[in-house]
Amino acid sequence: MAVNKSSKCRIVIDAMGGDYAPQNAVLGAVQAEKNNPDIEIVLVGKSEQIQKILDQNKITFDSKRIINADETIEMGDSPATAVKTKKDSSIVVGINLVKENKADAFVSAGNTGAVVTASTLILGRLNGVERPTIGTFMPNSTGVTTLFDVGAFVDTKPQHLLGYAVMSTIFVKEIYNISNPSVGLLTTGEEEEKGNKVTKEAYPLFKNSNLNFVGNVEGRDILQGKANIIICDGFIGNIVLKFGESVPKLLKYLLKDYSKKNIFNLIKVGLLKGVLKEALQPLNPDNYGGVPLLGVKGITIIGHGSSSVVAIKNMVDRAYEMYNKNLTRKIELALEEYGK
Amino acid sequence: MAVNKSSKCRIVIDAMGGDYAPQNAVLGAVQAEKNNPDIEIVLVGKSEQIQKILDQNKITFDSKRIINADETIEMGDSPATAVKTKKDSSIVVGINLVKENKADAFVSAGNTGAVVTASTLILGRLNGVERPTIGTFMPNSTGVTTLFDVGAFVDTKPQHLLGYAVMSTIFVKEIYNISNPSVGLLTTGEEEEKGNKVTKEAYPLFKNSNLNFVGNVEGRDILQGKANIIICDGFIGNIVLKFGESVPKLLKYLLKDYSKKNIFNLIKVGLLKGVLKEALQPLNPDNYGGVPLLGVKGITIIGHGSSSVVAIKNMVDRAYEMYNKNLTRKIELALEEYGK
Repeated sequence: MAVNKSSKCRIVIDAMGGDYAPQNAVLGAVQAEKNNPDIEIVLVGKSEQIQKILDQNKITFDSKRIINADETIEMGDSPATAVKTKKDSSIVVGINLVKENKADAFVSAGNTGAVVTASTLILGRLNGVERPTIGTFMPNSTGVTTLFDVGAFVDTKPQHLLGYAVMSTIFVKEIYNISNPSVGLLTTGEEEEKGNKVTKEAYPLFKNSNLNFVGNVEGRDILQGKANIIICDGFIGNIVLKFGESVPKLLKYLLKDYSKKNIFNLIKVGLLKGVLKEALQPLNPDNYGGVPLLGVKGITIIGHGSSSVVAIKNMVDRAYEMYNKNLTRKIELALEEYGK
Repeated sequence: MAVNKSSKCRIVIDAMGGDYAPQNAVLGAVQAEKNNPDIEIVLVGKSEQIQKILDQNKITFDSKRIINADETIEMGDSPATAVKTKKDSSIVVGINLVKENKADAFVSAGNTGAVVTASTLILGRLNGVERPTIGTFMPNSTGVTTLFDVGAFVDTKPQHLLGYAVMSTIFVKEIYNISNPSVGLLTTGEEEEKGNKVTKEAYPLFKNSNLNFVGNVEGRDILQGKANIIICDGFIGNIVLKFGESVPKLLKYLLKDYSKKNIFNLIKVGLLKGVLKEALQPLNPDNYGGVPLLGVKGITIIGHGSSSVVAIKNMVDRAYEMYNKNLTRKIELALEEYGK
């Protein structure tokens, strides 16, 4: 390992992570470094492939900061098995660099489950954290809404949900400068008695906490931004996230279908496509810069498999921001305060 | 009770149900009756208000088929309490007419929970049904996709999910003429081992059944129509349904926001609006004609609170279709066959 201590924020990129790896991962990371003198990128993956991308794009990059990892965890691999058996994968090698204090953060657009598993196993959980959590950003009409958990863990217990709320409150407060972020519990009705067993048991825990708890919120409230943070079991969050991501595809299909009906429709849709693309830009997940895994001893940012160059760059920026604001330590302190 | 036996299909309308009651309920029901000589409508609710709507619209309607019910279960009422205490509500009185064989079906755009509770308590469950289920239609690019359960019950057990699949298979087969509807289990990944405790236990039950089971489906598969029937716990279904319903509102907001940026955008959005409205017509829930409650001894169709006149008419047509195809009996036979 040739990575040395540095006064900069050292961010490891999983160069093999994502559908367009290594290209988008390498180019996005290099761009982030170019824009911010406080960032020092470390590229982990098949070094020959990484070098090829750098050469093709005429980028000079210190070869000491390219760490070879011969294996790749694929999108379809079982996370637990892959992390155990592919010790020389970019994900495992990269997270080990953070563990060994040879880097300050890890960024990946690869297999989400594997990144969660490897981060949890290798970095370890913060004191008081039973379950780490990943969140996502939901576009809406009023400001910032984040949804936690979106698939780190399923079969969540009420106290896990409270933990997610405490951690995400710190995240939203620090990263979005919202002094007292509002927290809602995702369930089937506004009333306290609405919901399933887990949310009904979680309600009093939330109510009696110091969180800015605004009560139960429903499925329709997510896109209406009824709270800055909406908390749910990872099973629900994963389904809602993937459902939401599929909406633009249906819109495209419906417009195409409509345009096929006659030549006038075809022309109208042709004229308006650009407008729609621009107007719906806030829905583009590339803007969000990946989602953090909260609750582990270190900074891990996870991105969508289809992450663009800009998305990767934004993920690196997000990692830097979390490092710069000392977020991990602040979450630890908040958890201590909650006696969790 | 002045309702007599008839060779027609006697359909009770909850005239007080829905945000635009009694107007939309009365006008939609009357329109359905006008279009189909085999339908005989019975209007239940505050008879003075019903008569007023009929008079205002110059409709002659046999007053013997207006059944007075002095109470109204409001949208915000707790279902269980309301059904027990408001015995003279349009929902309880209407469903009792079906129970007493004075009518063949019940249609309501009122409080969904109350209609489910009253139907289950008053009509009773079919043999072998532990839990009735309500479904919804999901627009997609390939044909019919229905989602069961969307909120009849939460904290579902694996065998309940199987029951939903058996009942909805008959429904989709008969109503959409799909000879062997495909069934998917909604969870977090395609692989058998993905999901939460309940779906992982349900998987082998589905696999070993005679259902046309296509395996696990994910959130993104709902709008892509990966299966004719997608099965989930009512908690999840309720959240997905409400989330989906809120999407058009976000699109409207984003377009409005974009149009505010400058005069050109304003003009472009003005032009786009009409196209979008037409192209997205398949998303209009009015088309679906309400959702059936499957598993009770009788026909109950539940509609959206905001149901239009056309939506109510379609709900009545759907009830007639279920009656005409003897759906309740067919579901009973299918359940017997499954030994459930």
